[in-house]
Amino acid sequence: MSIQIHAVSQNYHGKKVLDDINLTIEPNKIYGLLGRNGAGKSTLLNIISNRIFASQGIVTLDEESLNDNDRTLGRIYLMSEVNLYSERSKLTKLFDTTELLYGSFDRQYAKALADKFDLDLTSRFGKLSTGYRSIFKLIVALCVPADYIFLDEPVLGLDANHRELFYQELIETYSEKPRTFVISTHLIEEIANLIEHVFVLNDHRIVVNGSVPDILEKAYTVSGPDTDVSQYTAGLNVIGDDHLGGITAHYVYGALADDRPIPDTVKVEHLDLQKLFINLTNEKKVATHVS
Amino acid sequence: MSIQIHAVSQNYHGKKVLDDINLTIEPNKIYGLLGRNGAGKSTLLNIISNRIFASQGIVTLDEESLNDNDRTLGRIYLMSEVNLYSERSKLTKLFDTTELLYGSFDRQYAKALADKFDLDLTSRFGKLSTGYRSIFKLIVALCVPADYIFLDEPVLGLDANHRELFYQELIETYSEKPRTFVISTHLIEEIANLIEHVFVLNDHRIVVNGSVPDILEKAYTVSGPDTDVSQYTAGLNVIGDDHLGGITAHYVYGALADDRPIPDTVKVEHLDLQKLFINLTNEKKVATHVS
Repeated sequence: MSIQIHAVSQNYHGKKVLDDINLTIEPNKIYGLLGRNGAGKSTLLNIISNRIFASQGIVTLDEESLNDNDRTLGRIYLMSEVNLYSERSKLTKLFDTTELLYGSFDRQYAKALADKFDLDLTSRFGKLSTGYRSIFKLIVALCVPADYIFLDEPVLGLDANHRELFYQELIETYSEKPRTFVISTHLIEEIANLIEHVFVLNDHRIVVNGSVPDILEKAYTVSGPDTDVSQYTAGLNVIGDDHLGGITAHYVYGALADDRPIPDTVKVEHLDLQKLFINLTNEKKVATHVS
Repeated sequence: MSIQIHAVSQNYHGKKVLDDINLTIEPNKIYGLLGRNGAGKSTLLNIISNRIFASQGIVTLDEESLNDNDRTLGRIYLMSEVNLYSERSKLTKLFDTTELLYGSFDRQYAKALADKFDLDLTSRFGKLSTGYRSIFKLIVALCVPADYIFLDEPVLGLDANHRELFYQELIETYSEKPRTFVISTHLIEEIANLIEHVFVLNDHRIVVNGSVPDILEKAYTVSGPDTDVSQYTAGLNVIGDDHLGGITAHYVYGALADDRPIPDTVKVEHLDLQKLFINLTNEKKVATHVS
């Protein structure tokens, strides 16, 4: 029981957009899919949900191929950044269409959510602001009966109150009816406590694939006087650094040095997920990555 | 020396969008303008930058009215969420146009920024993603020679690395050449350390206008057992609450109770700016606000 992504690569106009992606997405788990702008996140989500075909590789759901397979497709839903809805359609009509496609669309919950988000369902889609377009799309995503729900930039343009409401609703609906959510977002710190497992795409490859606690366990900031820090982190996997006056911070991903003590002048703390991500994916810095 | 907003109100199709706004924006300061979606932020910014006329009230710069005043207008720049650029224009052409309008546009810095953000200046504006449209617009905003620069959602669609780069560049250019920035954003925690002063618009009125440290000084979370918390916060300005099991958190904005001690079971901590904002502007909760 899972979605398996086997050796998926994608080329676009001769450029590599995805390079040999291998992932397992298990049932009833909340994932984060992180990556820079242009890293290939949306392409990967489009391939998994069968909107585009991979140049190479295959995606299976419970060991059946997803390609043109009616039985498997209704089980996967993608809320994408692209607006697939007609600008002139009324929101209630769009619910009707979704209901036709997905038999057991939860219309009652959709109405309750529209009320909580102050979304007027008599509006036309084209009249909504960026934030309210996201809200409408995420309401549909939370109410379709799919087993695997992919959310591409679900909070784009949402204010802080609506983002908090969305995270609360996601946890609530997940607890009541467990299913898989894969959230792709640039607001990493806000989902750090929501997700169990994270995939990081960088330069079209997966560079991190693991449980969030395990990953944060081996992510450190080592700070103090320049020379003491550099001496201590020599040979460690330093993925980035910052300097302010005579103080240096080295960001380390991986094991610390067992063979030497941490000097008294040096402070070692854990990194948060957003800061870890920034350092792992900063192009201007050269570093070896561990996955 | 300042921008003065005197009793500005705005009606739109018989609905109040701004209600008696009075603000002073001083030279060489970084401000945050916060508000929910639809609170009227963009309307206020459009009025200040003379893109629309207020139904009532007046905006002055150094005591001269801004209305159709060529001398004052070149001193104010608005980077807005609306895309004013032709989709077919090349980015370098758009720099040329800006240079014609604003004589001393800093083209060298603009090129350096484009390089740092990996923005290809030979692209056409219409080909850019949401994130890169924001990046192009904020580069222009950082390079125009205006004294007052208004940034409406400057980081919409930017990944975490680019947001961090933008905040760093903003601080750097501000230190080198002090001028006023007013930042309107939904990512409140990310700018909390950047801004000196904050305006909060709620329900079309200003509900908070003050220095960030002063405001955070009087924003508290009071948490502990339900009854102890409620007893202690009775009579205080409680702007919101959360409950989990038998534990209650009351959010207080204003003075604590001087006349009674904090019970041992109750923990009092400071709120962060985003959490304060959410509680001050949550419509579903009834609370009196202090400004």
